[in-house]
Amino acid sequence: MKTMEAAMAKTPQAYFQEVARYKTEPLWMRLAEVLTNEPPVRALPCLWRYADIRPLLLRAGELLTAAEAERRVLMLMNPGLEGEVAATQTLYAGLQLILPSEIAPTHRHSPAAFRFIVEGEGAYTSVNGERLIMHPGDLILTPAWAWHDHGNETDAPTVWLDGLDVPLVKGLGAVFAQPYAAGTHPVARPDNASLGLYGAGGMLPLGAAHDGPHSPLPIYPWKQARTALEQAGAPTTPHDGVIFEYVNPLTGGPIFPTMSAYVQMLRPGEQTRRHRHMSSHVMHVVSGSGVSIIGDARLEWRAKDTFAQPGWMWHEHRNLSASELAFLFSFSDRPVLERCGLYREEDRGPQG
Amino acid sequence: MKTMEAAMAKTPQAYFQEVARYKTEPLWMRLAEVLTNEPPVRALPCLWRYADIRPLLLRAGELLTAAEAERRVLMLMNPGLEGEVAATQTLYAGLQLILPSEIAPTHRHSPAAFRFIVEGEGAYTSVNGERLIMHPGDLILTPAWAWHDHGNETDAPTVWLDGLDVPLVKGLGAVFAQPYAAGTHPVARPDNASLGLYGAGGMLPLGAAHDGPHSPLPIYPWKQARTALEQAGAPTTPHDGVIFEYVNPLTGGPIFPTMSAYVQMLRPGEQTRRHRHMSSHVMHVVSGSGVSIIGDARLEWRAKDTFAQPGWMWHEHRNLSASELAFLFSFSDRPVLERCGLYREEDRGPQG
Amino acid sequence: MKTMEAAMAKTPQAYFQEVARYKTEPLWMRLAEVLTNEPPVRALPCLWRYADIRPLLLRAGELLTAAEAERRVLMLMNPGLEGEVAATQTLYAGLQLILPSEIAPTHRHSPAAFRFIVEGEGAYTSVNGERLIMHPGDLILTPAWAWHDHGNETDAPTVWLDGLDVPLVKGLGAVFAQPYAAGTHPVARPDNASLGLYGAGGMLPLGAAHDGPHSPLPIYPWKQARTALEQAGAPTTPHDGVIFEYVNPLTGGPIFPTMSAYVQMLRPGEQTRRHRHMSSHVMHVVSGSGVSIIGDARLEWRAKDTFAQPGWMWHEHRNLSASELAFLFSFSDRPVLERCGLYREEDRGPQG
Amino acid sequence: MKTMEAAMAKTPQAYFQEVARYKTEPLWMRLAEVLTNEPPVRALPCLWRYADIRPLLLRAGELLTAAEAERRVLMLMNPGLEGEVAATQTLYAGLQLILPSEIAPTHRHSPAAFRFIVEGEGAYTSVNGERLIMHPGDLILTPAWAWHDHGNETDAPTVWLDGLDVPLVKGLGAVFAQPYAAGTHPVARPDNASLGLYGAGGMLPLGAAHDGPHSPLPIYPWKQARTALEQAGAPTTPHDGVIFEYVNPLTGGPIFPTMSAYVQMLRPGEQTRRHRHMSSHVMHVVSGSGVSIIGDARLEWRAKDTFAQPGWMWHEHRNLSASELAFLFSFSDRPVLERCGLYREEDRGPQG
Repeated sequence: MKTMEAAMAKTPQAYFQEVARYKTEPLWMRLAEVLTNEPPVRALPCLWRYADIRPLLLRAGELLTAAEAERRVLMLMNPGLEGEVAATQTLYAGLQLILPSEIAPTHRHSPAAFRFIVEGEGAYTSVNGERLIMHPGDLILTPAWAWHDHGNETDAPTVWLDGLDVPLVKGLGAVFAQPYAAGTHPVARPDNASLGLYGAGGMLPLGAAHDGPHSPLPIYPWKQARTALEQAGAPTTPHDGVIFEYVNPLTGGPIFPTMSAYVQMLRPGEQTRRHRHMSSHVMHVVSGSGVSIIGDARLEWRAKDTFAQPGWMWHEHRNLSASELAFLFSFSDRPVLERCGLYREEDRGPQG
Repeated sequence: MKTMEAAMAKTPQAYFQEVARYKTEPLWMRLAEVLTNEPPVRALPCLWRYADIRPLLLRAGELLTAAEAERRVLMLMNPGLEGEVAATQTLYAGLQLILPSEIAPTHRHSPAAFRFIVEGEGAYTSVNGERLIMHPGDLILTPAWAWHDHGNETDAPTVWLDGLDVPLVKGLGAVFAQPYAAGTHPVARPDNASLGLYGAGGMLPLGAAHDGPHSPLPIYPWKQARTALEQAGAPTTPHDGVIFEYVNPLTGGPIFPTMSAYVQMLRPGEQTRRHRHMSSHVMHVVSGSGVSIIGDARLEWRAKDTFAQPGWMWHEHRNLSASELAFLFSFSDRPVLERCGLYREEDRGPQG
Repeated sequence: MKTMEAAMAKTPQAYFQEVARYKTEPLWMRLAEVLTNEPPVRALPCLWRYADIRPLLLRAGELLTAAEAERRVLMLMNPGLEGEVAATQTLYAGLQLILPSEIAPTHRHSPAAFRFIVEGEGAYTSVNGERLIMHPGDLILTPAWAWHDHGNETDAPTVWLDGLDVPLVKGLGAVFAQPYAAGTHPVARPDNASLGLYGAGGMLPLGAAHDGPHSPLPIYPWKQARTALEQAGAPTTPHDGVIFEYVNPLTGGPIFPTMSAYVQMLRPGEQTRRHRHMSSHVMHVVSGSGVSIIGDARLEWRAKDTFAQPGWMWHEHRNLSASELAFLFSFSDRPVLERCGLYREEDRGPQG
Repeated sequence: MKTMEAAMAKTPQAYFQEVARYKTEPLWMRLAEVLTNEPPVRALPCLWRYADIRPLLLRAGELLTAAEAERRVLMLMNPGLEGEVAATQTLYAGLQLILPSEIAPTHRHSPAAFRFIVEGEGAYTSVNGERLIMHPGDLILTPAWAWHDHGNETDAPTVWLDGLDVPLVKGLGAVFAQPYAAGTHPVARPDNASLGLYGAGGMLPLGAAHDGPHSPLPIYPWKQARTALEQAGAPTTPHDGVIFEYVNPLTGGPIFPTMSAYVQMLRPGEQTRRHRHMSSHVMHVVSGSGVSIIGDARLEWRAKDTFAQPGWMWHEHRNLSASELAFLFSFSDRPVLERCGLYREEDRGPQG
């Protein structure tokens, strides 16, 4: 570093101006910025309380129709990433509201999306003409470039957490979007039809066509997720308690090539072992309450809260209840980091 | 062929004797045998009626203890493959009986095996120390080189269909077997523990180690299979009705590298479209009754019957009942044919 | 869009301030920015002439020692990406000079790098202690996290084009770098040893260990590349002339998980068919001269020039010589776009 | 085993007759045959001397035209596999002669084949209309179901070693063959065209279509193989000396899904370490002389000899010359054993 400062000092101002004329710049003037010893911290640990945001969402419901809003969403904005629409460096999260009798118009886009249902029973997302019926805790996928819309034919508001890979896809210069010309995509199959075909454990239909790198299973019911967590018995990793990855049943790999989703259970009083990894995560509390130490931040969370866990930050989670299980849903950019050969993980050992 | 006969005629007897001295033989004398236009028919379509075999199995139960028999099995022998222990050219099938209070000794072998439960409720197969509890219609895997034994602590006889790749593995010169030194492998995990970890649709445990190319899921419950078939709605292929493949949830591929297993449903009166393929199948009737035309044979089957469908034979299946569903379990050598680039399929079209 | 403007108009200012307090923002205010119909154009087509830059590089050689500079590089800066160190949205390119008797210190970093030799014969890059001897047109890899340094024991300056995935890796928050503690990594194997093991077409050494997702072949000699191009005979694609991808011989896939490199040949007068694709490319002229139409720009290039071809821009190339072959080296981010399921391609047909 | 004999003794003769009526047989009567502790030894180590066989081949040339013979081949018959056309349990080998002015008729078959040139310069194999020109030591592929013929327009006899997976494919019931209707397939591309496209190390053509699981490279020249062996420097495995696998450049995997081919070099006096593995090999001496200990057999070999190394037999090789390199070509069934999860290997350590 000393030599570099010397190098910078020895470079006359006129030289910069001249090289700039030819659209070049000396690496030695910016080497410390180009090749950092560790990735600079930008995204911050951050908690979004449902108790704060729900009233604001309902206010938005008074201000605007679903059609007016196209999507009535409050985006969760990481304070460390000012100017960017991002919950972590690569992930987008938002809370979306759909009121009784509303339909959000059909569109599609190259970013992959899913929704995790926070409240409301019986509304639907329609994907390529198949309605997927919502229950709290269900995970519903709207893969890249799939036509989708949402509707609420119940008499109660429905709220879900949206997760998308928008910051990543934007960084790759690959965001495309398209409205459906004819308003709403017609219903093309029975409700939840794909769940019948792809949702059974260890069984796949012969001859059922599926294209593309995303999961053919568009809905992962909470009921089944919770049963799996409770039956697993022991923690599957020391860092996460009992944790399952939602997978593409055709491959055993992540639901999307860019993002993966998880659900985990912390037993009463359970404290996970500290570690860190390249991937960033958006965590959402399905039920229970606890605390997460992420870097220097201490985030106390309750049911329906959401928080950001940036990449490469030491972190640990604790269920603060002595009697109640805590369930956390989360999603991350781990697949893209692994596919790029950039995933790393570190464990300080049991003492943390 | 004419030229070949001429070539054979022109080759003097002395020449044969001389080349044989050096352990060689003229190809032109055997070309028609080495490179056949089509594979010669050897295995035959063949039906084994449970009504015939069950009494013989029970007689075996009187003759021998399970320990004496090591495995008390009547092997299903294809009459076209005399001298070979085989139900089709590559597949072994047998019906095995275990009586109340019996335990079959622990062993392991390089051929992969599974059992499909025909009658009896509550007996178990133990795989590497995990007991898998049997119900009629369950599929239980004992992968290659996994320690396994069977026990019956109920008060009724239990019968299952064994499926193995013995003829294939023998042909490759790769059969190894080993008894467990200490009699019976100790119980190492809770009953059906792996079902909790790997049995949920679209979910996999993070951090749960699994080695080898076989499925980590050792039991595929009938209840779940039947539900999947009934929910699928429409036939998934014209040749099979509604059909699911049992898969390795880590890969979406077959349960074993050498064999795959399937379960299918024919609706009342349903008739499948005629086709043929390289893979041979052993078919087993879970419930219902019908008829299969395989090559020139017409096999009428009822619940618990088993039949052989040799490779490359035209075949079609019909549910003969006007009101009852028919359920068929089957297994085949398709994975090894596909991995060798040798799989073919032909369809004569809807008219057959 | 109209409805969206209406929605924006209906949202009172106070509402923004309130939602901002809780680190949220209304999606409907920024939807057009979050989900663009097409990716916005940022990077621009841009040509860097070697005739302009070479004298500036040599000036830098007078200003600074290699040790002072750590790496004596003029970075090629895309004028559309101001503030970013980038030749295209995801790719970094620079021209590096090493003078006789210089050694650049050993370091390693998580971004993957390669160098393509522009002038000079006999200098070396050392990767994990194996020296790779440079000749013009050679491609030399320094994969992610591999120790590497460069040295010039000849009596002439050596210049190469550096290619890295820095903008991509930075966007993923995954840049790590480390200097080698002991100055220069010791020589560990004979020069070009890996070329002997992995460089033969259609042959791989049994038992030679290799880890990681990058190619085990660290040098791709120009001599061999040129021979392949000349022997291929006919164009391999209508859009590129005769084009080869440099591949990982263990997989047939790209040299790095994030970047791929190519070499192509345009025959005298050859004009490629117009098309566009998501991937961006940095193109470098090995020899010959021609013109590329990229978007609205017309770039006339000569030997040793470099130019940027941003993603999703229509483009075509023409060899302007009536007698001379043109050879172009290039590299792109196509692997990461494909792995993320985001790659697209469009062809306006022969008329363009 | 004792219990089994007891079980056999306790089974009355009448019972056998009765179970046989229903095409079943008791497993306990044949368990030792079905599940052997180790695979039974059938194929034997065996040497075929070229000095013995060459005169017999030339005699065949006098007896028959190439057209009469279809293929003028002396098959190498393993004495342990009487009745089978096989050099090892799964592999076929033969020596084929083609005389000046002869053309062997075009045909294709589902078994995969290659030829390794033993003597003669300038004859050709044509694969799908591309002529591949033969030189001693070249490996030429005729993949499964590819049209192929051979011709000799030189004025000297040409002899090569044929390798096929016929015993394996026959065991799977998958042998198909077909003559080309119009006699000889027309020439469709320049000679050795695919070598230009796929033969360069570390480079693959973009846009060049290739289907199927076999290598797109139909010829692997000896010149290149020998150079690779000599440049590799040190033994790549203790059991083989310097050894390379011929690979599919699109995947880095074996040339065929069923068979792989290798070439190895033993330095003067070199002795390999004893080991054994499931795969069987046919070995062919390109040049040099030495001895192989395979099981209890001691095979002394010279240039152009061929020998069988059955699966699971301990073996070691020694170059008996103090000054000359020894080069061995070989092929094996290892890919199919690995794909079936049945491959095993054992090493008794350096002392053997």
